[in-house]
Amino acid sequence: MSRTIRIKDVAEHAGVSVTTVSHVLNDVPGKRINAETRARVKASAAALGYVPNRVARSLRTRRSQVLALISDEIATTPFAGLMILGAQEAASKRGWLLMLVNTGLDPAYEAREIQALLQRQVDGFLYATMYHREVELPDELAGLPVILLDAVSRDPSIPSVVPDEVGGGRTAVEVLLASGHRRIAFLNNRDDIPASRGRLEGYRAALEAAGVGYHQSLVTYDASDSAGGYRAAAAVLDGTARPTALFCFNDRMALGAYQAAAERGLRIPHDLSVVGFDNQEIIADGLRPGLTTVALPHYEMGAWAVDTLIGSIDDNPQNDDRAQVVLPCPLVTRASVTAPGQTPG
Amino acid sequence: MSRTIRIKDVAEHAGVSVTTVSHVLNDVPGKRINAETRARVKASAAALGYVPNRVARSLRTRRSQVLALISDEIATTPFAGLMILGAQEAASKRGWLLMLVNTGLDPAYEAREIQALLQRQVDGFLYATMYHREVELPDELAGLPVILLDAVSRDPSIPSVVPDEVGGGRTAVEVLLASGHRRIAFLNNRDDIPASRGRLEGYRAALEAAGVGYHQSLVTYDASDSAGGYRAAAAVLDGTARPTALFCFNDRMALGAYQAAAERGLRIPHDLSVVGFDNQEIIADGLRPGLTTVALPHYEMGAWAVDTLIGSIDDNPQNDDRAQVVLPCPLVTRASVTAPGQTPG
Repeated sequence: MSRTIRIKDVAEHAGVSVTTVSHVLNDVPGKRINAETRARVKASAAALGYVPNRVARSLRTRRSQVLALISDEIATTPFAGLMILGAQEAASKRGWLLMLVNTGLDPAYEAREIQALLQRQVDGFLYATMYHREVELPDELAGLPVILLDAVSRDPSIPSVVPDEVGGGRTAVEVLLASGHRRIAFLNNRDDIPASRGRLEGYRAALEAAGVGYHQSLVTYDASDSAGGYRAAAAVLDGTARPTALFCFNDRMALGAYQAAAERGLRIPHDLSVVGFDNQEIIADGLRPGLTTVALPHYEMGAWAVDTLIGSIDDNPQNDDRAQVVLPCPLVTRASVTAPGQTPG
Repeated sequence: MSRTIRIKDVAEHAGVSVTTVSHVLNDVPGKRINAETRARVKASAAALGYVPNRVARSLRTRRSQVLALISDEIATTPFAGLMILGAQEAASKRGWLLMLVNTGLDPAYEAREIQALLQRQVDGFLYATMYHREVELPDELAGLPVILLDAVSRDPSIPSVVPDEVGGGRTAVEVLLASGHRRIAFLNNRDDIPASRGRLEGYRAALEAAGVGYHQSLVTYDASDSAGGYRAAAAVLDGTARPTALFCFNDRMALGAYQAAAERGLRIPHDLSVVGFDNQEIIADGLRPGLTTVALPHYEMGAWAVDTLIGSIDDNPQNDDRAQVVLPCPLVTRASVTAPGQTPG
């Protein structure tokens, strides 16, 4: 990839000194170079196809304008794309680039990859998990510019961004309450993770705020996939006090719940309203009727983390604007919620 | 991110010259340094936490061991993760890193991002599309080490890797033929893209090889989503010669076909066998019964592209081992296919 056009070729073409070319093309602050000269240098560089060597520049400045996104299991969730896209577009807007490393949850491998990134003078790190969970920062990243992405540490001094699970749970239940539902079941994930705890807290808070009692019998726990949702929905729909609405931990469980409802001759939304979580469009748009659900702010979290990280690197690497941030989970309305009808039995 | 440990600290600690440290840590070929000295230098480097400056090295060698994956729309398909993962893991196995750039189908933006990558001495490029399509290589990449990923050029000198759509279509239909089906409908994507053309060709080839006639009335075209699959399935299931099996262009269309079948009281697989394409697990595993489908080799394509690209860079940038490659699409058997039963009317 060697290019034969060098800075002195640009200088000769533009009729200025090499130093002037360097100042113009590197946007060196505090140098007074008139607009006409700037334009001529840029035109010469473009005409000759000159590519400034950023590697030489980063050796001088010790700044590469490259961030690394280190993630555990990028491939296991369809969300990965949006989080990476948010990070990548935010970096690009500021002229930064993003390196991507996937560690497969292997600490030794992770340590080697972090060394490889440090050798290339990466300026900062996003340490991402592919679902909201609690993590310990790897030792190799201690003291470096880092933000946890969709992950949170017990150490409050480590900045992070995660979804507002409690608020999202409230939102889901509030839309059902607003339609007149009172017997609302929650098909929760049986794994003890921030999402299952937070969404349950939001479910309870919304019920209590509306003066509707919380009944443990309306909360079931199962695997967070379609089969788990099918089983959990079957359990509450075949129980003694059939709910008029289901809040499902995620859209995959809602997919199973739709199947359980269909087998019982229950039409959605007339006989049963359903709200999901995640806004996985392949499911939420694919179901009939479309699934009203709560969106995870993956794009926004990726963008926020990059903006904040670059800001802290540019302003002052030592500054202590560190925080654990939550971003809101907005409602996405489709067609799976209506007022409760005459429920059988 | 400045580190205070320098190469001369390692040299002092190990009791050798700076040159020896450099030769050991950079694996300079042709230098005879005995194993004991090598081990001592590496131990000293590890003890002091010395990180060799790869930026300085790449300035000297003009080789960064970084590849860029440039893609059009990473976020719009759940496949992106597996293709990126395949590329990233293949790079990592060889000690290379992967930069990620998303162009959002904007040529001006793409040109700027490619410039930014060239400035950082990226050694090679993967130019990826998020579904198999025909592309023109951007001018900025002409003459550079590049492989098209899930994309193909009309120019056969530009190397590429795409799925074997024809073979995948054959595979899908062959599993239905082997179960005894003869009236097999194909719910195709109405977009004229390599996947719709190739899978149709495979459908026809499998029927002809089995001595089963091709009937245009059994092929319908609609949008490649759940709603399109629902409409297309309704059309063929309500037609005069109801098929006993459906081959769906993709799993999303199969999701809609399941809904159309359920509304007509048709049980899958007893009354209707269904085969999908893509192996989108969130659907294929989420449906009841699980969907037998054909997998796209996204992980394998990503890995193949990186292995081939690094090979061509390492061996000889000028070598002409250029090819347009297709990788097979394997069958993933679940529970949506059985022998045809007594079909109504």
